Amino acid sequence: MSPRASPLLLRVLAGETTERPPVWFMRQAGRYLAEYRALRAKAPDFIAFCLNPEMAAEATLQPMRRFAFDASIVFADILLIPRALGQQVWFEAGEGPRLGELPSLGAMALAAPKAGEALAAVGETLGRVRAALEPERALIGFAGAPWTVATYMLDGQAREDRAAARRHAYEEPALVEGLLEVLVAATVDYLAMQARAGAQALQLFESWSEGLPEDLFGRLVVEPHRAIVEGLRERGVMLPVIGFPRGSSQYAERYADEVPVQGVGLDTAAPALVGERIQQAGKAIQGALDPLVLRAGGPALDDRIDELVAAWESGPWIFNLGHGILPDTPIEHVEQALRRIGAA
Amino acid sequence: MSPRASPLLLRVLAGETTERPPVWFMRQAGRYLAEYRALRAKAPDFIAFCLNPEMAAEATLQPMRRFAFDASIVFADILLIPRALGQQVWFEAGEGPRLGELPSLGAMALAAPKAGEALAAVGETLGRVRAALEPERALIGFAGAPWTVATYMLDGQAREDRAAARRHAYEEPALVEGLLEVLVAATVDYLAMQARAGAQALQLFESWSEGLPEDLFGRLVVEPHRAIVEGLRERGVMLPVIGFPRGSSQYAERYADEVPVQGVGLDTAAPALVGERIQQAGKAIQGALDPLVLRAGGPALDDRIDELVAAWESGPWIFNLGHGILPDTPIEHVEQALRRIGAA
Repeated sequence: MSPRASPLLLRVLAGETTERPPVWFMRQAGRYLAEYRALRAKAPDFIAFCLNPEMAAEATLQPMRRFAFDASIVFADILLIPRALGQQVWFEAGEGPRLGELPSLGAMALAAPKAGEALAAVGETLGRVRAALEPERALIGFAGAPWTVATYMLDGQAREDRAAARRHAYEEPALVEGLLEVLVAATVDYLAMQARAGAQALQLFESWSEGLPEDLFGRLVVEPHRAIVEGLRERGVMLPVIGFPRGSSQYAERYADEVPVQGVGLDTAAPALVGERIQQAGKAIQGALDPLVLRAGGPALDDRIDELVAAWESGPWIFNLGHGILPDTPIEHVEQALRRIGAA
Repeated sequence: MSPRASPLLLRVLAGETTERPPVWFMRQAGRYLAEYRALRAKAPDFIAFCLNPEMAAEATLQPMRRFAFDASIVFADILLIPRALGQQVWFEAGEGPRLGELPSLGAMALAAPKAGEALAAVGETLGRVRAALEPERALIGFAGAPWTVATYMLDGQAREDRAAARRHAYEEPALVEGLLEVLVAATVDYLAMQARAGAQALQLFESWSEGLPEDLFGRLVVEPHRAIVEGLRERGVMLPVIGFPRGSSQYAERYADEVPVQGVGLDTAAPALVGERIQQAGKAIQGALDPLVLRAGGPALDDRIDELVAAWESGPWIFNLGHGILPDTPIEHVEQALRRIGAA
């Protein structure tokens, strides 16, 4: 394969500024697609759906058939890791995830090094998708980052401000530290398995890093992310990693400096200048179109894309949303965005 | 009154670095106080409670009797302005605010210049508090900032991500622009009334500025805040103003540059360096202790306060929380914080 034929996404993660940014959208496999809703209806249990390689591969590939995305991300859920560690996970209709009692740290520590094996179904999904995907389109594996996963594990459910989990960080620091260590180990094993199974890049989703004081951002986000990337490298996994500390662009430059990732995900509220500085420091950025402007469409969508292009096209940049695509987003607006960025 | 006897808070807002930072806590009058809960139980309707000068003054003064706070903030609610503009506001127990149908822009535009008159009860509260408060303790008036108030007015209730309101900003920009103009006019009149009634400083609470893309932060936050401060100055109201764009510390330096406030409120997740830069640019900062560490108490609380002192004591700084005090905060921890900062 000539360097020219290497997927755009991987060229950008190698530090290259490409003729146009590669594009993928968070939650590009999801409810805004009629074919996804039809597929999902066949599997009442969401976790079972994620762990069914045939169905998960189909969900992953659906947006790739319809749109000119440059990358595909394996269909899975960030709460598969707690399940692999022995904590019950289920979804209440219209309410989001619920988690059972937190297993003991000892029990989870024993399960952590086998997380990849426990979630081998995700590897099978990756293999199926890689076999079906054109070579110029990259395949991304992912995991929820430790703090985000911990907020669910500690709180039992998703709450607006993650306060229950953050309270633990102050009031039971040993528990939180131990849990993060277990999650780092499990995440390394899970991502290493995804690399073996065919992933070409890896993303860490830190969905709940917003609202963290500076010291906690270091302890709960920066340190575990660094430990994961270093753990992967020690295991010989050299794939590029994208870290996405959502809701904390005030710390994004620090994150880029201190975590040895190849790409930094920026959210909807990241100032353009923050992205430019990370590019100038030699890393790729990813983001950051507001999902609401994608939903709105029209001239506002074109204008906002043009602003992002003007700010970031002169450095390594993966065009993406700043948050997941909304279920009521019209298909035509995704097509409009892909045209505007020059991908379709 | 010699400059030395001027309330610490006002000295800091005049740009002075004081021997210790003045202290007050957002929601210092509230449910963590047994005497507040007893008072509140006498008035089942929350809006009626806010508009009863005797009760609101008592709520305002309760924490001043118990603690060595340097400033008092009038007990009121940010949703009094929609009420003054003719929109119904009520509180569902345990659910937060609900708002009725949005009145027409025309009707609200007629009501806006009389917002102060409509909310004269808040002025009466201020007068009662000022009469009871020692001269070295400052009295702060406040209003919800236009975008935050608009999110409630447009959405009818509080939701996690304010998405409904932000959608309007993209899909019905003329409505949002018109609403913000009305809110600016109403807020100027309301705050000017508070100034006449005895307030010595004014705070704008932008509670829901998090998650805004850069262009929207300019249109929805920076511009209305600037218009309010300029409107107050045109009316001859020269009191210092503190602007608090919560959840958007990535834009705090821009905010400090572009809005002619005297103080900038920083939230829990603001990097220390952002505060230092605003101080160096000549403005006071206010913040930013995590309410969860106040709740936790112990050595973690002392350590965190010491970190804030080390970062910010060499410039104009008002010590405060980064968000409102939590209802389950022990009284002893408030006392501990006041001792640690040197106020008690």
